[in-house]
Amino acid sequence: MKIRYGGDYNPEQWPKEVWEEDHRLFDEARIDTLTVGVFTWALTQPAPDVYDFTTLDRIVERAAAAGRGICLATGTGAHPAWMARAHPSVTRTDFEGRRHRFGQRHNSCPSSPEFRRLSAEMARRIARRYAGHPAIVAWHVGNEYGGACYCDLCAAGFRDWLRSRYGSLSALNAAWYTTFWSHTFTGWDEIEPPNALTEHWRGPDHTAFQGITLDYLRFMSDAMLANYCDEKAAVRESDPDTPVTTNFMGLYRPIDYHRWAPHLDFASWDNYPPDDRSPARMALAHDLTRGLKDGQPFWLMEQTPSVTACRDVNPLKRPGVMRLWSWQAVAHGADAVLFFQMRAGRGASEKYHGAVIGHAGRSDTRVFREISSLGTELERLGAATLGARTPARVALLFDWDSWWALEISDGPSRLVKYLDVVTTHHRALWQLGADVDVLPVTASLDAYDVVVAPALHMVKGDLASRLSAVAERGGTVLTTFLSGRVDEDDNAFLADVPGPLGPLFGVRVDEWDAREPDYVNPVTIGDETFASRLLFELVIPQGATVVGTYGADFYAGTAAVTRNDVGAGQAWYIGAGLDPGGVERVIREVLAGHGLLGPCAGLHDVETATRVAPDGTAFLFVLNHNPEPVVLPPLDGVDLLTGEPPGTLGPHGVLILTTEAAGR
Amino acid sequence: MKIRYGGDYNPEQWPKEVWEEDHRLFDEARIDTLTVGVFTWALTQPAPDVYDFTTLDRIVERAAAAGRGICLATGTGAHPAWMARAHPSVTRTDFEGRRHRFGQRHNSCPSSPEFRRLSAEMARRIARRYAGHPAIVAWHVGNEYGGACYCDLCAAGFRDWLRSRYGSLSALNAAWYTTFWSHTFTGWDEIEPPNALTEHWRGPDHTAFQGITLDYLRFMSDAMLANYCDEKAAVRESDPDTPVTTNFMGLYRPIDYHRWAPHLDFASWDNYPPDDRSPARMALAHDLTRGLKDGQPFWLMEQTPSVTACRDVNPLKRPGVMRLWSWQAVAHGADAVLFFQMRAGRGASEKYHGAVIGHAGRSDTRVFREISSLGTELERLGAATLGARTPARVALLFDWDSWWALEISDGPSRLVKYLDVVTTHHRALWQLGADVDVLPVTASLDAYDVVVAPALHMVKGDLASRLSAVAERGGTVLTTFLSGRVDEDDNAFLADVPGPLGPLFGVRVDEWDAREPDYVNPVTIGDETFASRLLFELVIPQGATVVGTYGADFYAGTAAVTRNDVGAGQAWYIGAGLDPGGVERVIREVLAGHGLLGPCAGLHDVETATRVAPDGTAFLFVLNHNPEPVVLPPLDGVDLLTGEPPGTLGPHGVLILTTEAAGR
Amino acid sequence: MKIRYGGDYNPEQWPKEVWEEDHRLFDEARIDTLTVGVFTWALTQPAPDVYDFTTLDRIVERAAAAGRGICLATGTGAHPAWMARAHPSVTRTDFEGRRHRFGQRHNSCPSSPEFRRLSAEMARRIARRYAGHPAIVAWHVGNEYGGACYCDLCAAGFRDWLRSRYGSLSALNAAWYTTFWSHTFTGWDEIEPPNALTEHWRGPDHTAFQGITLDYLRFMSDAMLANYCDEKAAVRESDPDTPVTTNFMGLYRPIDYHRWAPHLDFASWDNYPPDDRSPARMALAHDLTRGLKDGQPFWLMEQTPSVTACRDVNPLKRPGVMRLWSWQAVAHGADAVLFFQMRAGRGASEKYHGAVIGHAGRSDTRVFREISSLGTELERLGAATLGARTPARVALLFDWDSWWALEISDGPSRLVKYLDVVTTHHRALWQLGADVDVLPVTASLDAYDVVVAPALHMVKGDLASRLSAVAERGGTVLTTFLSGRVDEDDNAFLADVPGPLGPLFGVRVDEWDAREPDYVNPVTIGDETFASRLLFELVIPQGATVVGTYGADFYAGTAAVTRNDVGAGQAWYIGAGLDPGGVERVIREVLAGHGLLGPCAGLHDVETATRVAPDGTAFLFVLNHNPEPVVLPPLDGVDLLTGEPPGTLGPHGVLILTTEAAGR
Repeated sequence: MKIRYGGDYNPEQWPKEVWEEDHRLFDEARIDTLTVGVFTWALTQPAPDVYDFTTLDRIVERAAAAGRGICLATGTGAHPAWMARAHPSVTRTDFEGRRHRFGQRHNSCPSSPEFRRLSAEMARRIARRYAGHPAIVAWHVGNEYGGACYCDLCAAGFRDWLRSRYGSLSALNAAWYTTFWSHTFTGWDEIEPPNALTEHWRGPDHTAFQGITLDYLRFMSDAMLANYCDEKAAVRESDPDTPVTTNFMGLYRPIDYHRWAPHLDFASWDNYPPDDRSPARMALAHDLTRGLKDGQPFWLMEQTPSVTACRDVNPLKRPGVMRLWSWQAVAHGADAVLFFQMRAGRGASEKYHGAVIGHAGRSDTRVFREISSLGTELERLGAATLGARTPARVALLFDWDSWWALEISDGPSRLVKYLDVVTTHHRALWQLGADVDVLPVTASLDAYDVVVAPALHMVKGDLASRLSAVAERGGTVLTTFLSGRVDEDDNAFLADVPGPLGPLFGVRVDEWDAREPDYVNPVTIGDETFASRLLFELVIPQGATVVGTYGADFYAGTAAVTRNDVGAGQAWYIGAGLDPGGVERVIREVLAGHGLLGPCAGLHDVETATRVAPDGTAFLFVLNHNPEPVVLPPLDGVDLLTGEPPGTLGPHGVLILTTEAAGR
Repeated sequence: MKIRYGGDYNPEQWPKEVWEEDHRLFDEARIDTLTVGVFTWALTQPAPDVYDFTTLDRIVERAAAAGRGICLATGTGAHPAWMARAHPSVTRTDFEGRRHRFGQRHNSCPSSPEFRRLSAEMARRIARRYAGHPAIVAWHVGNEYGGACYCDLCAAGFRDWLRSRYGSLSALNAAWYTTFWSHTFTGWDEIEPPNALTEHWRGPDHTAFQGITLDYLRFMSDAMLANYCDEKAAVRESDPDTPVTTNFMGLYRPIDYHRWAPHLDFASWDNYPPDDRSPARMALAHDLTRGLKDGQPFWLMEQTPSVTACRDVNPLKRPGVMRLWSWQAVAHGADAVLFFQMRAGRGASEKYHGAVIGHAGRSDTRVFREISSLGTELERLGAATLGARTPARVALLFDWDSWWALEISDGPSRLVKYLDVVTTHHRALWQLGADVDVLPVTASLDAYDVVVAPALHMVKGDLASRLSAVAERGGTVLTTFLSGRVDEDDNAFLADVPGPLGPLFGVRVDEWDAREPDYVNPVTIGDETFASRLLFELVIPQGATVVGTYGADFYAGTAAVTRNDVGAGQAWYIGAGLDPGGVERVIREVLAGHGLLGPCAGLHDVETATRVAPDGTAFLFVLNHNPEPVVLPPLDGVDLLTGEPPGTLGPHGVLILTTEAAGR
Repeated sequence: MKIRYGGDYNPEQWPKEVWEEDHRLFDEARIDTLTVGVFTWALTQPAPDVYDFTTLDRIVERAAAAGRGICLATGTGAHPAWMARAHPSVTRTDFEGRRHRFGQRHNSCPSSPEFRRLSAEMARRIARRYAGHPAIVAWHVGNEYGGACYCDLCAAGFRDWLRSRYGSLSALNAAWYTTFWSHTFTGWDEIEPPNALTEHWRGPDHTAFQGITLDYLRFMSDAMLANYCDEKAAVRESDPDTPVTTNFMGLYRPIDYHRWAPHLDFASWDNYPPDDRSPARMALAHDLTRGLKDGQPFWLMEQTPSVTACRDVNPLKRPGVMRLWSWQAVAHGADAVLFFQMRAGRGASEKYHGAVIGHAGRSDTRVFREISSLGTELERLGAATLGARTPARVALLFDWDSWWALEISDGPSRLVKYLDVVTTHHRALWQLGADVDVLPVTASLDAYDVVVAPALHMVKGDLASRLSAVAERGGTVLTTFLSGRVDEDDNAFLADVPGPLGPLFGVRVDEWDAREPDYVNPVTIGDETFASRLLFELVIPQGATVVGTYGADFYAGTAAVTRNDVGAGQAWYIGAGLDPGGVERVIREVLAGHGLLGPCAGLHDVETATRVAPDGTAFLFVLNHNPEPVVLPPLDGVDLLTGEPPGTLGPHGVLILTTEAAGR
């Protein structure tokens, strides 16, 4: 038992002699796991009445013969061309209202009865054939679910979903506030999917009716979840035990992963960061993925060994970076490190995507050498970290509803993005070395000393009281501008801002100002001053202590940051779009108050993360994301990889220290 | 009798107990007028055969009981969802040729027979029910007419409109110059609306056939005017007297307000400037609105008390700004100051739009306090300014045809925008304190000493001779580059540029140069030098005196600005895209020559405006648009609001001095 | 016999009295050639069954009477309105899948049977009527072929084209690599045109399946070629001899002019450069056009005398520039210098386009004077240069397949544009005074000392061995990054990069880095350092000598530019996106090695070009593209235009020196 290592493998694209070479190179690189069949629908069902598993049989048998585990896909991530021709309903209708024809991938309408029937049948047949095969270690349903469809079948599905949610049109009219702009619906069939031909002005975020658009986002996420569940159920008919997953995409807006998570046996995700300067963002996505299944280890299902292809500009991963990011995944809870792709395809849109084996088939390249070297390291580590958990005492709340509601809102500022606010706050926690669980707003908060809830635009259920309870028992709660604005239906609270959060934070906000990005209002906290931008709430303390004040405009001298004493704890409110330095200033004070600053808290882009194995052994991962070496502070333990004590950590260097878990 | 104060009120969105609270707060703020029912079609006609005025009755009665006047809307600004389902023709087809389904607002096809029938019937029934009610002070038809439709019904309507305009296809072919690009039409039904599927390349301004696009703009404006007239006629069946209006949008390109104006009993408009740095632009829109009805006072139908919601960034009106802008409206001729909205809606796309009463219902906010305070001031002013007129001796010509023709033209520069040229010239007049009437090109020019006609691209009818007459009798006429280019059909004059204006201005233009925005050609006038940009006409004097010369390029030293002596007067020609300083330099000389410089002509962003009441009393409004105080020059009279003599005027301060009208 | 002078003439837009004035002014300007009838379809076929040549007869006779030659168009560049109404299939369906209605020009679906039948019939009838008329000097088929259609008829045509190309679906599936993403086609009718509704994400370059999109580009170019051939064949029925052409657009991506060239009797093109700072780019387009017909002289079919109209900003050609650019065309092989347009139209989208005769009809304008003056010069030159050839010893390979394949590729960088790479290399050759033949990759390379093949992304047929042969016999070959990547089907070579070019260049590339445009990696060559941007290949010499090395990043010190000794010659490889200075540094060394530096090689924006007449007389054109005078180095001969020896050359000045051809 060890961390799984390998990735997406498509030998159906190659002649048999290449397969032999593949397995020779896999051995050389210590590859033990292959994801097979992600886009094989046209192969396994070449015609309406023909199912043909000949090639897939050979692939599975050859991999099994080499002793490798197989993550077997149902292959429904793209439908075959014949299916689009025979059943036009399987294709999607886009935001512009245009029915698509065959092309691309992730191209199936989630509401199409033919797609639902045929995809489930494919999953059923694959599972029936391969269930019980000793090489099968997991089932991989679909692929990177996402996008949206706006066809008439989806419209009908939406109406059913609404009927089920609201029961009556009057409840729906109330929730959507349809008295506004003469929108009262008097028949279910009057309701249209919100898109460029109905409610939207300028793209998916610019809607005339927030409630409709919000519910369509919820519906579409649920509709695709139903597709996943169709296939999972079909797999379970033959295989009651082998874990089933699908690969998520981290911080992906269209799918509410929290609603999906209960239906996965373990979580997995594909890590393609937008650039090479975002280690904290990757950490956030890892923490979010781990939080989907209550801290259970996840799989890093895909990453590129070298370059992506789909970006306008595809930079090369620098030497050591692929290794560093792989260990980062492990540090945050991954029990598998997989690549896309094992061998570079010759044609179409991913031919320039990085691969374990390139077009020339060489093993003497830098990239292959780094892959082999990591394979050796993972083998050396063995089972040590398998099943280990993160002992976080900090929770960060992440909420798709708030994400959606904030970004589809008209006013106060389309420039305020949910992820920007969340990542700024998470990055401060990350830079300061706190282990963080990223959780849905429904999660229990009992285990945490600190709960950070950036841009908690929508407040649902008993969340306000659960946050208060954290503070009452001595914890610290922190939220920001644009929190506590709307209820579950995106209707404003008829109360002072921040609505039900007001008593906890001890503030009231009557006015807020939004400015263009080049405008800066300096905020002074103690003897330091930080820039704030985009949004400025005029915070009126209602019991809270003023911690930071604006430096400019007619509200100069008034509160921008406050702290409220509540029971044994505190509630912080950040009312301005503080820059990262300002946020780190506040977060540092909060963490320090709970003794939660990490051992490398002062070191720029040096990350620490802790995992504790089932037997109690703690691992402190120290990751240097800088291209320069760093001198570490004194740390206990020795490096599992080298047996050496810590000292200077090289560029993109990694240490795994066995020591007691920092947070316990 | 006093200036009306209040705004858009939607109690149908609220339970009855809120209504009581509303009226309590309205009393507190001295609100006397409510605009009711702007989007109530789904309420008053909940089904094809059901008209239900129960709620509207209650709203009207409650307002009347409180002694407030009601501006009652016909409620047709958005059609109900059932109507879009029952009659798809009521929805619009957009510029991309896509039939829309139900959504948004201002969503009705102007050519739909069902929309025309049902909207007129709604207006008929509302008027029948409420005509004669003592609380009704005005009828508000539709709402912010605008946009466009490109459906087959509009295509048919367009063909009818063309038949009526041209009589024959040969006349149409001549007007549109269809010999070009094989465009000769041999049947009326070959004519298509010009859009993305026919004549347009890149959006509404980029057409292959200017004549077709120009006529479609004219047709569409007329088609919506017909909608307005449908409803007005229906109202007049029951109520022959109460004034009827619709709310315009100031400098709004799609609708030719000059063609609409005869059909309104008084003009009104909604003031939502693009930013908070545009006092002159608002003044221009006020002057334009006043000019629609020959100087008669108008209503400021909407403004936000605090923030908008529909912008990407929605800044807050600073303290004093709402008051300042309200008085600016009065200074330019408003007899009503109204807000959108009286109470903030809870949901949909305007929930974050500013309101007199916010979600928390407080009266102890800065915004409510400023509203109440202005209410008190307006009450104090009473009837003093009602019906007062602006004694302008300067006219600025504003022409939708020139606006359209200039901006849909291929060449010489898409970067030259009609409004930019107009606002630059108007701003100079404004900054220098001249009262200005903004007029259609058909207006009599007899009353004016100065006539400014920026970018008078199209010259129609006898305009050239009327302009000449102004100069002949001692007045001054001014025009700019890109004037006198085309006739009413957008065909170039077969003459030297500026066509029929050539003799008046004494110049000829054989060549013109257009450059990217970063290129500057300095223009020297006297001993001053100003930047010019975008467009540079090579002006060849034909009798005119050279006033300004280019400083660069192969035409350095040649004429950029000229002055021609004509009869007892003068005609100025500005051939280059002069910067605001250069334009102000020229305008100052022109105004000074007629003794028309205002009393604060030297003070940056200090505005003066005069109104003269029917009894001859003159009011000089002095408005400080700066966020700093200014020391005023000596001015006669005392401030009507405070009874004090003028001196220093505070940030965003306002004075209303009673004195003799400056221009008489 | 002399260089033809004139241009597009549309008297059908004018009354007869204007025609007389036209010919008077043509005489004054020495106009001898008129292109007639380019957009006359609606005139010559005003109804389905009516052909009417009355007006065209008069135009031809009037021009003939004046002794002018006529380039007679078939007039099919835009279909009549009645045709779009009667046969909707003649209109195009755009990339978004939308069927267009009547409008614009160049608006016909190439696959429409009605368009094909009717356009051929029009060509047939025009040729039948005017064939043999002594004034007819050439046939002008269609106009500026281009754009694309995506209708169902084109889909059917595409499938036929594919059947013919691949023979079987299995061959097609292999070529398109359809095993990827479940794309295997099992029926021809499953194949859809690649557009926004099928394979494309963000516009025409962003496809999921490169092979499909590449073949559609090839198909569409061939489909329009078939339209051209339809009409040419119809002309040939009546006129076996008079040359037939169509006007190309220089560096125009959608049409593979190399595939069209065999079907033209002579090449011609319309020169509308993107700005006035691109003399080298125009030279490249001239060289490309000349290369289409193996060096045979071509026509400059259109240029503006003064301004364009279709650009956002349309600057004026400075004094002397029209003359300079006209002579540049002649210097590169033009035997005709023609304008668009002879008289400025009054209406529609080209009314502001420059013309020989403007709206005022004056001959005393700067522009008309320059036109007359050039007419006199051309008359003075007479037949001297007619039929002369360019004695180039440098070839530059230009390949539409590489252009398409590179720019539709996913990865490594969408910012690398084929034309940017080509123009950077051509500009260095141009600045250094080398005469260059721009050739298809299929051309014989035997005549050249130097072959430059920038961004030779696709390597087809025996090209690699033909390039090797150049080096073997002592020539120099040069290529760049992103060359040798794919085969004719756009599938990656299963070999080290640069694929079949590897042995010739003696390098191997395992990795490449792409960076944002603001990132610069300095490359040192000898004691000079140049910037490189966008793309950086990590070049591993396999026999080649390192000439330039990277200065930054983890590959600092490794090879960026190499030179390989092969037989008696050399092969240069530029692995980085070198700036123009760096490329010029390398090209200078290459040219110097072959004694090919031009006589003005050191003078910025001074161009030299040589033509050798059939009688052996050589002409050295010296063109000063600077707005300042330049002092020339000593040059032999005297100026044909002035009879003076060369010395200082004025701003935008031109010399034509008779001397022995430089390269012989």
